[in-house]
Amino acid sequence: MHYIPEGFLFSSANAKIKYENRNDVGLIYCPNGVKVSAVFTKNKIKAAPVLYSQNLLKNKSNFKAIIINSGNANACTGEQGVENCKIICSNIAKKLKIHEHDVLISSTGVIGVPLPVKNFLNISEPLIKNLTKEEFINVAKAIMTTDTIHKIYSVKKDNFTIFGFAKGAGMINPDMATMLAFILTDADIDKNLMDDILKRVVDKTFNSITVDGDMSTNDSVFLMSNRLKKNINIDEFEKSLYEVALNLAQMIVRDGEGATKFVKILVRNGTSEKQCKNIAKSVANSLLVKTAIFGGDPNWGRIIAAVGYSGENFISEKLDIYFGDYKIVENGAESENFSEKRCAQYLKKNKDINIIIDLNEDDKNWEYYTCDITYDYVKINAEYRT
Amino acid sequence: MHYIPEGFLFSSANAKIKYENRNDVGLIYCPNGVKVSAVFTKNKIKAAPVLYSQNLLKNKSNFKAIIINSGNANACTGEQGVENCKIICSNIAKKLKIHEHDVLISSTGVIGVPLPVKNFLNISEPLIKNLTKEEFINVAKAIMTTDTIHKIYSVKKDNFTIFGFAKGAGMINPDMATMLAFILTDADIDKNLMDDILKRVVDKTFNSITVDGDMSTNDSVFLMSNRLKKNINIDEFEKSLYEVALNLAQMIVRDGEGATKFVKILVRNGTSEKQCKNIAKSVANSLLVKTAIFGGDPNWGRIIAAVGYSGENFISEKLDIYFGDYKIVENGAESENFSEKRCAQYLKKNKDINIIIDLNEDDKNWEYYTCDITYDYVKINAEYRT
Repeated sequence: MHYIPEGFLFSSANAKIKYENRNDVGLIYCPNGVKVSAVFTKNKIKAAPVLYSQNLLKNKSNFKAIIINSGNANACTGEQGVENCKIICSNIAKKLKIHEHDVLISSTGVIGVPLPVKNFLNISEPLIKNLTKEEFINVAKAIMTTDTIHKIYSVKKDNFTIFGFAKGAGMINPDMATMLAFILTDADIDKNLMDDILKRVVDKTFNSITVDGDMSTNDSVFLMSNRLKKNINIDEFEKSLYEVALNLAQMIVRDGEGATKFVKILVRNGTSEKQCKNIAKSVANSLLVKTAIFGGDPNWGRIIAAVGYSGENFISEKLDIYFGDYKIVENGAESENFSEKRCAQYLKKNKDINIIIDLNEDDKNWEYYTCDITYDYVKINAEYRT
Repeated sequence: MHYIPEGFLFSSANAKIKYENRNDVGLIYCPNGVKVSAVFTKNKIKAAPVLYSQNLLKNKSNFKAIIINSGNANACTGEQGVENCKIICSNIAKKLKIHEHDVLISSTGVIGVPLPVKNFLNISEPLIKNLTKEEFINVAKAIMTTDTIHKIYSVKKDNFTIFGFAKGAGMINPDMATMLAFILTDADIDKNLMDDILKRVVDKTFNSITVDGDMSTNDSVFLMSNRLKKNINIDEFEKSLYEVALNLAQMIVRDGEGATKFVKILVRNGTSEKQCKNIAKSVANSLLVKTAIFGGDPNWGRIIAAVGYSGENFISEKLDIYFGDYKIVENGAESENFSEKRCAQYLKKNKDINIIIDLNEDDKNWEYYTCDITYDYVKINAEYRT
């Protein structure tokens, strides 16, 4: 059951940008306007739609529509890439009888190939004609690339609703660029507060997942509110937004290329969130840890080595490490109760793996989400294209 | 043909630390003493032999012997680990009739298992009895772990000789910890200068290689001079040391776990060496780039994305990228002459791949060395132990 806030209309179409037999363009339209907060990739190489939308968002926060496509990232396409964004948004705006600057754009797909503008123009008429409240599921499907499932999560509270959808099969996809999320709500929140909340929530969700540590040129998260519901409990809103973002983020990791295991890494009792996050990230990105988990090998030496090269300070003699409930490292050395056999069973039997790294220093925590690295990961990424 | 400086004696033995049928302990002895410079892992979790040797080197620079073992890293073994180093060094010193503090120690192997001190004591007698000038090759073999070949490189100049050997099948090995190098010379160089030269050379060689970005708890490079040859041309010495270190470092990458390709990444015409190094490192560690090279896929989008998330500034509109002689990216977009077929052939036909990233900004350069990531990498690291 998905909950959609009132006032949003959806439509999708097949522009044949890359895929012949499925829709690859989605449109979200809100006639009464939405206030938008967004965060974008920190990659120095930013795709044209990121540059274009980011630039619009510098000057205003009220919009009415966003057009999204898969199959082409419109990245590394020079000035023409940005010009193409303008042509497409302008065309949609004209047909919707709104201002060109009220339309945002977001893309995912192959890098370095010019966006086929004509394909967009060809489908803009039916795209607008078919706008309905129910079409959301097809927009979520239209933005998929190597995703094996579409990703939707929503929350309904007494006086507001949050609906989110995302695409991504890892922080990166082969040649694909890469993670997009769109979160729609009716909750009326002060714009500055909305920006802050989005940043905090993204940091703990989309910025705390990894499949292989590569960062794309197109990563974007949009939060769009049509402000229909007033007097929002801010704490409740932030918690609900976190729930939506966390679930979408975890869906991306679970759909990670070739992944067979979902791994939650909790670093706890540190002196700062930054320390905990950097240690968790270091372990989450370690190829040795990720291949060990694939192999069902409770190889704590690899975890402790990754903790050690995280760049963060910690007291190694205080370090405890657990696989699930099993303590494997105590005070920086192998736990007396460590049973390799029992831990190997835990890793082999479960699809969801919990690793806890206890710094035993103070009370700060951070969770990071990752998956294993498998033969299929290499296959998918070595055999793509050629 | 290997060149060994006068005055060094070598010996190896099978202490059965882990391997039953091959030697696993090596000893280098220089009765007249050696001046030692060394660099160690920056991992916060340092193995006991690193802590022990580093501590000795803080207080003095003259030594007479170093004992090295494979099969056990003596890492995460607590205070007893350091105490075990002391017992082993003390035992060797007693038998050689030298001071306990004249003996250094270095280890590689499994993390978290106490070092079997008795095994060392059992073989110390024959180890010392068998010391000869010729045994060097067996010491180089005794320190191997998952290495498929032993790694030796030497240079003989008019008035000095440099002999180096190393172990490592990547920056990391499964459960192994990991890269060790020992460079012996007769060149008499001022101690401070020797430290500086070693640091500079290691930065451009052992610190510019990666197999998978994991950093071990035991990485160590020792430079040992018995000072028999005076009036050394410092430039010539640094160049020769660079040649030895570079060749050993490249041997480690070529022997990288599961690797089928050796990849040199040159970032050129940057504004600083730091900028060039960080960009090269980012590309060298990208799983997407490494799997693309395994697949023979000239996927420049993955390279440019890794350049973009390196954290360094650059002018994307100036960026050129080459595979060997083929220009694939020009001014930040696909080169007009790019032929996917020709580039795929280049990647598939050659075992040595050159990637050039030209920043076209200034005149600084950096080279980084890496290998591809293959099914065998996953196999080796997922199936180790269990």
